[in-house]
Amino acid sequence: MLSEFDLIKQFFQRDRRGRADLGIGDDCALLTPAPGRQLAISSDMLVEDRHFFAGADPFMLGHKSLAVNLSDLAAMGARPVGFTLALALPAADPAWLEGFSRGLFALADAHGCELVGGDTTKGPLNICITVFGELTPGHALRRDAARAGDDIWISGTLGDARLALAGYWKEVALAAHEHTQAAQRMHMPTPRVALGLALAAQPVAHAALDISDGLVGDLGHILAASRVGATLDVDALPAGPVLARQELQLRRRFTAAGGDDYELCFTAPVANREAVLEAGRISGTAVTRVGRIEAEPGLRMVDAQGAPLDLKLSGWDHFG
Amino acid sequence: MLSEFDLIKQFFQRDRRGRADLGIGDDCALLTPAPGRQLAISSDMLVEDRHFFAGADPFMLGHKSLAVNLSDLAAMGARPVGFTLALALPAADPAWLEGFSRGLFALADAHGCELVGGDTTKGPLNICITVFGELTPGHALRRDAARAGDDIWISGTLGDARLALAGYWKEVALAAHEHTQAAQRMHMPTPRVALGLALAAQPVAHAALDISDGLVGDLGHILAASRVGATLDVDALPAGPVLARQELQLRRRFTAAGGDDYELCFTAPVANREAVLEAGRISGTAVTRVGRIEAEPGLRMVDAQGAPLDLKLSGWDHFG
Repeated sequence: MLSEFDLIKQFFQRDRRGRADLGIGDDCALLTPAPGRQLAISSDMLVEDRHFFAGADPFMLGHKSLAVNLSDLAAMGARPVGFTLALALPAADPAWLEGFSRGLFALADAHGCELVGGDTTKGPLNICITVFGELTPGHALRRDAARAGDDIWISGTLGDARLALAGYWKEVALAAHEHTQAAQRMHMPTPRVALGLALAAQPVAHAALDISDGLVGDLGHILAASRVGATLDVDALPAGPVLARQELQLRRRFTAAGGDDYELCFTAPVANREAVLEAGRISGTAVTRVGRIEAEPGLRMVDAQGAPLDLKLSGWDHFG
Repeated sequence: MLSEFDLIKQFFQRDRRGRADLGIGDDCALLTPAPGRQLAISSDMLVEDRHFFAGADPFMLGHKSLAVNLSDLAAMGARPVGFTLALALPAADPAWLEGFSRGLFALADAHGCELVGGDTTKGPLNICITVFGELTPGHALRRDAARAGDDIWISGTLGDARLALAGYWKEVALAAHEHTQAAQRMHMPTPRVALGLALAAQPVAHAALDISDGLVGDLGHILAASRVGATLDVDALPAGPVLARQELQLRRRFTAAGGDDYELCFTAPVANREAVLEAGRISGTAVTRVGRIEAEPGLRMVDAQGAPLDLKLSGWDHFG
């Protein structure tokens, strides 16, 4: 029988020295922030049957749990430093813990982000990660920083995660290999950390956020915080490779309001177009220009010809 | 119907300016640590039916959720700065949220600790708080810092929370007013933040931790981390006012291995006895000397006459 302390020691405590002055095993972790740097902090909680299916593959779940948090750092332009993990588990299952911790640490190590502490308890499966990053004061990519005249940009592609969900729900018939490919986007999102760092470096971008609940709803947060409006060219939205082969209406709906994309939506002055493309190149991330921030409030969606589109979309509401 | 965003706005977003450069509402909170200060970080997850009863009073639960985290900062000697709150709720119940947030903020405000961000989602009730504090590098009260010859000290009193649980479980018959008094200790623990700060100021103490899973088990963590042993004078352990009226064997068991005490156990050199008492006075916290750290490994429990006691106790294991 695996005890709470064995569990932590066996799966989560590691010998390697990281950034922390003191890691797992005391009342608190100790971390000395780099002089003059600002700390970015974000918490996300993942619940079974809400954010992932019961019986989800533990390796992919370990990856995704950290990825959605790193995505918040990316959206702020912060460099990952460390994280805490609080875990409620129905049982201490070594096979599950082995897979989960492998997926978690594979992504953590790729970003030099150290597990510094946390908590484990028995309970309905629940994964809560709090992540810490550093950035230069004044360079954070805030939601309230969009300015009329800014271009709107999207990283990567949108909608394949939502398409995978539609496949699971039988809303859409997908070939097995297509579903597998789309599901990869759903289960193993890529946090756009390198792009966020490149955009915050000058800074190149004004406002940014990560798209977790669908572009239209999330872009709405930028518009509200910045007290601006926007026109969005729906047919310019970059669809994921599987979604790109679907019919137009589905493509429009799932790129504009899919959910679980974990791409960045950001705004930048027209004068920085070349710098944005360069940030995409140095970070190895596709960036696509999809609209314009305007002084007039509201979000106007248009098609490739500039004609208004009414897609009747809304963001995700956990209590809706 | 209360949406996720309404819920955050109504119960958790506040106008007051705190330490954070950017609080709730963006991808990350932004916080600039004071120059040259070290950051202490701790996460605790509270699960229904595990850490609290189903139907627990939401005001007290709000208090306790933050208190157990502040207790970790206290045990490190850190000054509270801010916290994140991730909350899974079966439903968005305004009455529950009102009580919970009042209990949470009453304690947060008493410690100048700002809610900087978090997450809300639907799911089995789960409360995950990550707390941030600051301290002077080198002054942290670490578990591995006990030295042979140190006195062992306890703050406040022990065992009333465990006695209240025994009352709920009908292990012990308590008068109604006694149960109410003991239950107050269980539901509304007092984090010993001021004492922790006073002990870390010189620093006065060597090692410290907060007693959450019972003194004997928790003291064992100090002994293991510091590679020392100890003799514990069980009859010197300060019992809570209700427990103090119970028979000797129960008093011994519940002070030595109660659980849910959230008092500090710390070690300090004999030369610092007066300084420890002074730390207790300036923080308004009772401190009691209960044993001695020794080079010989193992924990030896003795009675008031110094005779060995075998209480067959162990710490709490969530997966035991």
